[in-house]
Amino acid sequence: MRIEGPWKDATVRHSLAGRAESVLQARLLAELRDEGPLSKAQLADALQVSRTTVGAEVIRLGELGLAVEAGPAASRGGRRSTLVDLSPDIRFAGIAIGATGLSVGVTDGRLTTLGVRSRECDIKQGPEVVLALALETLRAVMSEVGVTRLSGAGVGVPGPVDFHRGVPVSPPIMPGWDGYPVRDAVSRDLGCPVVLDNDVNVLTVGEQHAGVARNARDFLYVKIGTGIGCGIVVDGELYRGVDGCAGDIGHIRVDDFGPTCACGNTGCLEAFAGGSALARDATAAARAGRSEPLAAMLAEQGGLTAADVGRAVAAGDPVAVQLIRDSGRRVGQVLASLVSFFNPGLIVIGGGVTGLGHALLAEIRGVTYRRSLPLATGNLPIVLSELGPEGGVVGAARLISGAVYSSDPTRSA
Amino acid sequence: MRIEGPWKDATVRHSLAGRAESVLQARLLAELRDEGPLSKAQLADALQVSRTTVGAEVIRLGELGLAVEAGPAASRGGRRSTLVDLSPDIRFAGIAIGATGLSVGVTDGRLTTLGVRSRECDIKQGPEVVLALALETLRAVMSEVGVTRLSGAGVGVPGPVDFHRGVPVSPPIMPGWDGYPVRDAVSRDLGCPVVLDNDVNVLTVGEQHAGVARNARDFLYVKIGTGIGCGIVVDGELYRGVDGCAGDIGHIRVDDFGPTCACGNTGCLEAFAGGSALARDATAAARAGRSEPLAAMLAEQGGLTAADVGRAVAAGDPVAVQLIRDSGRRVGQVLASLVSFFNPGLIVIGGGVTGLGHALLAEIRGVTYRRSLPLATGNLPIVLSELGPEGGVVGAARLISGAVYSSDPTRSA
Repeated sequence: MRIEGPWKDATVRHSLAGRAESVLQARLLAELRDEGPLSKAQLADALQVSRTTVGAEVIRLGELGLAVEAGPAASRGGRRSTLVDLSPDIRFAGIAIGATGLSVGVTDGRLTTLGVRSRECDIKQGPEVVLALALETLRAVMSEVGVTRLSGAGVGVPGPVDFHRGVPVSPPIMPGWDGYPVRDAVSRDLGCPVVLDNDVNVLTVGEQHAGVARNARDFLYVKIGTGIGCGIVVDGELYRGVDGCAGDIGHIRVDDFGPTCACGNTGCLEAFAGGSALARDATAAARAGRSEPLAAMLAEQGGLTAADVGRAVAAGDPVAVQLIRDSGRRVGQVLASLVSFFNPGLIVIGGGVTGLGHALLAEIRGVTYRRSLPLATGNLPIVLSELGPEGGVVGAARLISGAVYSSDPTRSA
Repeated sequence: MRIEGPWKDATVRHSLAGRAESVLQARLLAELRDEGPLSKAQLADALQVSRTTVGAEVIRLGELGLAVEAGPAASRGGRRSTLVDLSPDIRFAGIAIGATGLSVGVTDGRLTTLGVRSRECDIKQGPEVVLALALETLRAVMSEVGVTRLSGAGVGVPGPVDFHRGVPVSPPIMPGWDGYPVRDAVSRDLGCPVVLDNDVNVLTVGEQHAGVARNARDFLYVKIGTGIGCGIVVDGELYRGVDGCAGDIGHIRVDDFGPTCACGNTGCLEAFAGGSALARDATAAARAGRSEPLAAMLAEQGGLTAADVGRAVAAGDPVAVQLIRDSGRRVGQVLASLVSFFNPGLIVIGGGVTGLGHALLAEIRGVTYRRSLPLATGNLPIVLSELGPEGGVVGAARLISGAVYSSDPTRSA
């Protein structure tokens, strides 16, 4: 549609003013979320606008129920400024769904968790069953912490997601979820705005908010769980790629031949080194009589998991140690390439397999440092994530907080 | 230093105002550079500020000799606006130094080349000899096009660079250049501000300004010359990595064993697939009597280059075709990994080896598309750069234009 005549400029100017206002709102609320209560003077400095502009914006955000004045700030030597905080009524939910379990929780506006609960759950049961369990668990947490109304909820699932449509897209390990309207279903149920993303992106921003990556501008978060994926942060912002599938390193081919992957191809990193691959190789070693501890666990449990390999390592089993080393070597090979390409400032290793601890980390580090250019690894820490289930919950809450803080809920899109 | 008392706030506010002013200046001048002369109304819309702010900024930029008013703009139905353009006095130099040759040129403020000249030259002759040749050639171009004074110059060299210090850092194929103060030497000689970057970054921004990547926000530029490197653009901005060495894909290890690379390691992509590797393998094939056309060229010239392999392909030599396919396959393997990781919207292949043309491109495309996730390659064009020597000149000029436009030359840093 073309607008002609004298209205045109006014319309353009109006919408631009709206956009500028909403950018300022997003930056101001994110500043309060990440740095805590701040004086108007501090906010003016941080956002590079005048105190008058901050004052007007705080009044507007107060009317929207997003920010409050919280008493006088400490003196900085001049006129005493007023402290501004996020509204104490803001409550976000985080729902982090993995392949074999889920964690849900409730946070305040600054993403401090008020309550978190985890449940075992098989993603293969399909969206109706899994989402019902997630929402039931979330309602239990909400009732525990006395929250009746949510400002928004973030949801992470273990597969590729069309972020803009809010649906999983051909997720290899999530039968029945392809195209299921997860975002809209959860939004309808909870009566609040919802964002859906893949679990790795969710964990990445969780690590950025509450973990070891708190001060990193450019970093990678590598999740080694049942599958393997990577979150990418460039200049403080999650990078999703043009189709939203950046970071899908589990299906990088590390060998021309190799076990068949859940995606249907052969030679994928994930098919060599993920949690499923470890369990498969451990089972083969147990059956072939190459490892007594693994054979004993297999006989007792009828099956083996990646965690069992960790138990065998703790029991001093050399075959289990070798399995973990092989896995770490394959991951390290891929990370070395990514370090040469991306030159990150930090790599965080997370996901279930990190329970296997330092044998895995040592191998990943060794291969990555040895195979990358010295210039790119000179100051490159490779560390294990220290966040538990809270990481996914905080990450999911952070994703929805960004969406809620950047838009004006009184204005229809 | 701590400033106490009532001055403090004023000082902070003053410097913040200066920063905001300089951000606006940079955006306004970049807009004029990339979009041509614009009316004040169009600038106000593009920068989301008022026409009054634009008017004041244009007056300030006029005093600095950076922008000029260029008559009345076409009417948009309301009050007639004034056209603004970059000052016609702005002149940039671009100096693109490769392993075996260099190109220099002069552009106007919008990076239109006024004159370009290329010379053969061996980087191994060291910085004094090569820079003297570059500057002599540049002066010849300047005199041809009647330019006596430069606003700035950009320089690209074929090796890693410490961007902030303006010096090459341990460049594998540039003996004698390690730590040489290239930026300061050129700046002293030309009497203008200079930036130094690696040749791949220079070609990448050249492609972004004047080539097929003009409308791409997230893309990769892969240079296959004597060596192999990659430029990364994220959301329209060159991504350098935390140590400035992002994109160094030539030293990704593609095999545990393989020929020794110039960097001292074995198995690097560059040692399998770069121009030097092609020349080496072609020489071996000629000596072993496996290719008549290559043997004839070797006998006649006493040595072979990658371009000779291209000539043998044109003559229908199957051995030469196989050499190019092997090279393309190795490059494709690495690109497939990068596509899964980075999910770019476009890959541009440039550098001397692209003279080998479609046999190479076909193999790179085949392997990359086959090995990457379908979601990431569905809309991914992989194309050859169409820019000649101008690409490096425009890229180098664009790098210095960004630096010149974003800082106020009357204010000391």
